[in-house]
Amino acid sequence: MANNKKMPPKASSGKRNSKRRYYTYRKASKKSDYVPSKPKEKVKISFLGGMNEIGKNMTLYEYGDDMFIVDCGLAFPNSDLPGVDLVIPDFTHVVNNQEKIRGIIITHGHEDHIGGLAYLLKKVNVPVYATKLTIGLIKGKLEEHGILNSAKLVEIKPRDNITLGHFNIELIHVNHSIPDSVGLSIRCPAGIIIQTGDFKIDTTPVDGEMIDLPRFAEVGKKGVLALLSDSTNAERPGTTMSESMVGESFEMLFRKAKKKRIIVATFASNIHRIQQIMDVADSRGRKVAVVGRSLENLVSVGAELGYLNVPENILIPIERIKNYTDDKLVIITTGSQGEPMSALTKIALGEHRKVSITPNDYVIISATPIPGNEKMVGNVVNALIKKGVDVIYENMYDVHVSGHACQQDLKLMIGLVKPKFFIPVHGEQKHLVKHASLAESMGIDSDNIFIGDIGNSIELTQDSLKKVDNVPSGEVYVDGYGVGDVGNIVLNDRKHLSRDGIIIVVAAIDAEDGYIVSGPDIVSRGFVFVKENEELMKSAQELAERVFENTYDKKHHDWNSVKTKIRDELSHLMYEKTKRSPMILPIFMEV
Amino acid sequence: MANNKKMPPKASSGKRNSKRRYYTYRKASKKSDYVPSKPKEKVKISFLGGMNEIGKNMTLYEYGDDMFIVDCGLAFPNSDLPGVDLVIPDFTHVVNNQEKIRGIIITHGHEDHIGGLAYLLKKVNVPVYATKLTIGLIKGKLEEHGILNSAKLVEIKPRDNITLGHFNIELIHVNHSIPDSVGLSIRCPAGIIIQTGDFKIDTTPVDGEMIDLPRFAEVGKKGVLALLSDSTNAERPGTTMSESMVGESFEMLFRKAKKKRIIVATFASNIHRIQQIMDVADSRGRKVAVVGRSLENLVSVGAELGYLNVPENILIPIERIKNYTDDKLVIITTGSQGEPMSALTKIALGEHRKVSITPNDYVIISATPIPGNEKMVGNVVNALIKKGVDVIYENMYDVHVSGHACQQDLKLMIGLVKPKFFIPVHGEQKHLVKHASLAESMGIDSDNIFIGDIGNSIELTQDSLKKVDNVPSGEVYVDGYGVGDVGNIVLNDRKHLSRDGIIIVVAAIDAEDGYIVSGPDIVSRGFVFVKENEELMKSAQELAERVFENTYDKKHHDWNSVKTKIRDELSHLMYEKTKRSPMILPIFMEV
Repeated sequence: MANNKKMPPKASSGKRNSKRRYYTYRKASKKSDYVPSKPKEKVKISFLGGMNEIGKNMTLYEYGDDMFIVDCGLAFPNSDLPGVDLVIPDFTHVVNNQEKIRGIIITHGHEDHIGGLAYLLKKVNVPVYATKLTIGLIKGKLEEHGILNSAKLVEIKPRDNITLGHFNIELIHVNHSIPDSVGLSIRCPAGIIIQTGDFKIDTTPVDGEMIDLPRFAEVGKKGVLALLSDSTNAERPGTTMSESMVGESFEMLFRKAKKKRIIVATFASNIHRIQQIMDVADSRGRKVAVVGRSLENLVSVGAELGYLNVPENILIPIERIKNYTDDKLVIITTGSQGEPMSALTKIALGEHRKVSITPNDYVIISATPIPGNEKMVGNVVNALIKKGVDVIYENMYDVHVSGHACQQDLKLMIGLVKPKFFIPVHGEQKHLVKHASLAESMGIDSDNIFIGDIGNSIELTQDSLKKVDNVPSGEVYVDGYGVGDVGNIVLNDRKHLSRDGIIIVVAAIDAEDGYIVSGPDIVSRGFVFVKENEELMKSAQELAERVFENTYDKKHHDWNSVKTKIRDELSHLMYEKTKRSPMILPIFMEV
Repeated sequence: MANNKKMPPKASSGKRNSKRRYYTYRKASKKSDYVPSKPKEKVKISFLGGMNEIGKNMTLYEYGDDMFIVDCGLAFPNSDLPGVDLVIPDFTHVVNNQEKIRGIIITHGHEDHIGGLAYLLKKVNVPVYATKLTIGLIKGKLEEHGILNSAKLVEIKPRDNITLGHFNIELIHVNHSIPDSVGLSIRCPAGIIIQTGDFKIDTTPVDGEMIDLPRFAEVGKKGVLALLSDSTNAERPGTTMSESMVGESFEMLFRKAKKKRIIVATFASNIHRIQQIMDVADSRGRKVAVVGRSLENLVSVGAELGYLNVPENILIPIERIKNYTDDKLVIITTGSQGEPMSALTKIALGEHRKVSITPNDYVIISATPIPGNEKMVGNVVNALIKKGVDVIYENMYDVHVSGHACQQDLKLMIGLVKPKFFIPVHGEQKHLVKHASLAESMGIDSDNIFIGDIGNSIELTQDSLKKVDNVPSGEVYVDGYGVGDVGNIVLNDRKHLSRDGIIIVVAAIDAEDGYIVSGPDIVSRGFVFVKENEELMKSAQELAERVFENTYDKKHHDWNSVKTKIRDELSHLMYEKTKRSPMILPIFMEV
């Protein structure tokens, strides 16, 4: 892309889809369209996710009649969203503009970048561009949703170009905690924009492929309009350690484990980590068994696509571990965040069907807790230690390194790309603000830095960065098969129910004369032990009876006001007696 | 106590109570009872709380017919306990032995050491011994519970002795994050036991009173049977920083804040922290306003009892901050853990009635997040930064130090006390195990180290440490006024309700012929938006009707089996259609 001669307007590596209209339908009218030097041209960037939050990354670029999307992730709900399985972006703006959307580019295969894709494609089925491993992981997702066959997946390589309407995008290799990650150099008549994607600078990566800094520098030399850069680690000084460091720790710890069985818990997507575990296991004559569905899936996809080099005969099915002595075994498992349903948690609690823990186990948790998970990880560690297991966790040894660039690396990126405008992305407010201050310290004018929020849109020209009207955006909750059918009313009800339970007042009423035929009966769930509180329940019933008698009016039968009165008075009684506020639900049946 | 001559059997500093029978009722039969050298004597220690968990500390000592309790705390519930306000220890064992209980000694005024006391005294009203500030804080609690007048509170000082039956206990001053904290030297005919309480070693404490290491050393020299020591920071190497360090940071940060208004959030109980904030504010000519009920309470108790030296005219009511310019103000607030209902959270979200945040505010969070609170603190920081506020948080500067001893200090304590048996307490399993390994590294035989669990009892003699039968123990949940009326059934119902809500199937049935007179009607809460799911609700109703028809049997009216069938089939239907499992509650009324 840096060299215009190499970049014909129709160029694309997407052979399978080369006849599709989406990215070839409109020829670039003039070659010079791609020269980033037209003062009046405007490019618009809208942040549909991942801005000022962790998770569900999604960015929309717009030039003239062309739009394309970068990433479409999901977020995992916090405890504020009871019963919600996943959180995905609001696609309203994309659906409203679907005739303009030329495609989706995915930077890497992590859930917060691919997890929303299946939901999006069900609404707007445009081509998806990504590197080989990322495509492999996306395929698995789309298959689960039953839409693999209808999807248009285009595999591309770093340094390949994609033409999407007036946009031309080059992929640039970056290091991250999953292989085949890329940043993007996005060119349109308004200029070049670089979006780093999630990245770190690893000078000794496990696969030998260091981040393509020369390419970032080359593009930077041509003049970059804006840089969108990963802010995750903006609060951490220094540089991020190389993944290879972890391999050295594993070698040391595997020696320390002596004759014990080794169990390593790690993120399911970290192929390089798994590679290093397998290599050290192999060098010490240990077999490897893998536990946890996502991990099994990744190992098979990674091996099949050539990203994981599995030593010969090393892998054994978990069912066969009983055929080996402890000193000949390594088990790789999910659950490094202490997730309640994960393999490691089940193993620690003695609830796993295939792995029983003993004091002859040596557990390495090769991860650091994501903020919010500290307590869960601690619980798993405590449970393991209680069973007499040696546990290596947190900062005891270098058994984990981050996949995101720290301050020094972030500054290096800014220094190479030398953007006119700087937009920190992928982080909470505190990370974005810190990242902005790093950019300022390198001489970028604070007026040229944009700290955004979800739903923000900005318009860039060669001379200006302007915030324009917000676009529809937000969180859509996925609960079971339901997408968006759980909203604030339902969630507030769930939270209310979880705090103090429910009291149901049920009565059958004569439809003609309005007298009670049966009831009122009191039924409660999640409130108190009913047996120990019979008196309380009796006084609730008496109160309901009294309300009925006092409000009875055979002319009107205004059941709503009776219900309101029961709700108010019973609420009051319960609070007075118990200092609790259960949900009160009167149900009347006319007979 | 170290010198037998100074220790008459009846000695006690509790003047108010000197006539009470509890601690004088039984004279020590012989002076030599107190000499810790009788080989066959046994002392029993039971762990009713705080062992292998954080919070609700409670230890029970037993010798012959005499028992006494050390501390009676509470724990705050995690998200696993929806609607529960507090968790207190199970007092069954204490109640069962109430005629033996000679008193309760409280080591310091933190919630995890005093919070369960009011609940205990309602069941077993024995004298409570504590230092002045601790008594002051306890009084507040007992007043809230309306039992202050009936309580027997005995104020004592460090180096004072308390005689409780055959036990004689000396209080030893320690440093901690609340003033007036003590450790205990517990002597009975079986030997001397030292329980450190929560402690750190602060060589430059704010009040000038360094931990009484000489006394620990003196007792150690006499031969200590067992040491029970604080394990909170057993994972942290080195020594714990002095509280004075924080004062230096405040001076630097108050300078950096320039003309801005300063808001400092800290733990409400940390009087020394508040003292330092006031001192620096005073030196810079700023007034101080206090926000948050617990903090206001502590400032008034601390000042009244002489633990807080409030500079003249510095305190102003929060209502009067509008009369001062920003550069003349410091606001001290609660909420350093990001608690949703706390003052700082409300301020950050713009919901506080008395404090409005502006970009001219400079917020210092003088605390580190307790594990599990990281996310909440992060949310508050993000909200503040979004409003343009400067925020100093976590490890940016030394604005917080721990109140617990790190490894080096823990080892120093072990080295001074030189116990025969070592019992790490006050920590999760991982902390206890780490603390044990520190003791081992100092030459204590691993057979002489006991890592316990809640409910464990041990029997100590001069030569042996033996685990004996567990005592009743556990968690009792306080929800509103209810103590113990919320148990697993109710909690499981709440969790179920919070995940997928409830569907109620209600029908009126003719008592004679068993036919449906009205209904079945379907009512749901916390399940789905009903409007968007009318079809789903209709199919639920049809299913219920069908079950009624199919199971109708006018001879039997076996409503329970109809209910079960409706529950099963509706459950199945809902899972199939929505992949959710709401609680299903059939209610039938005979009319």
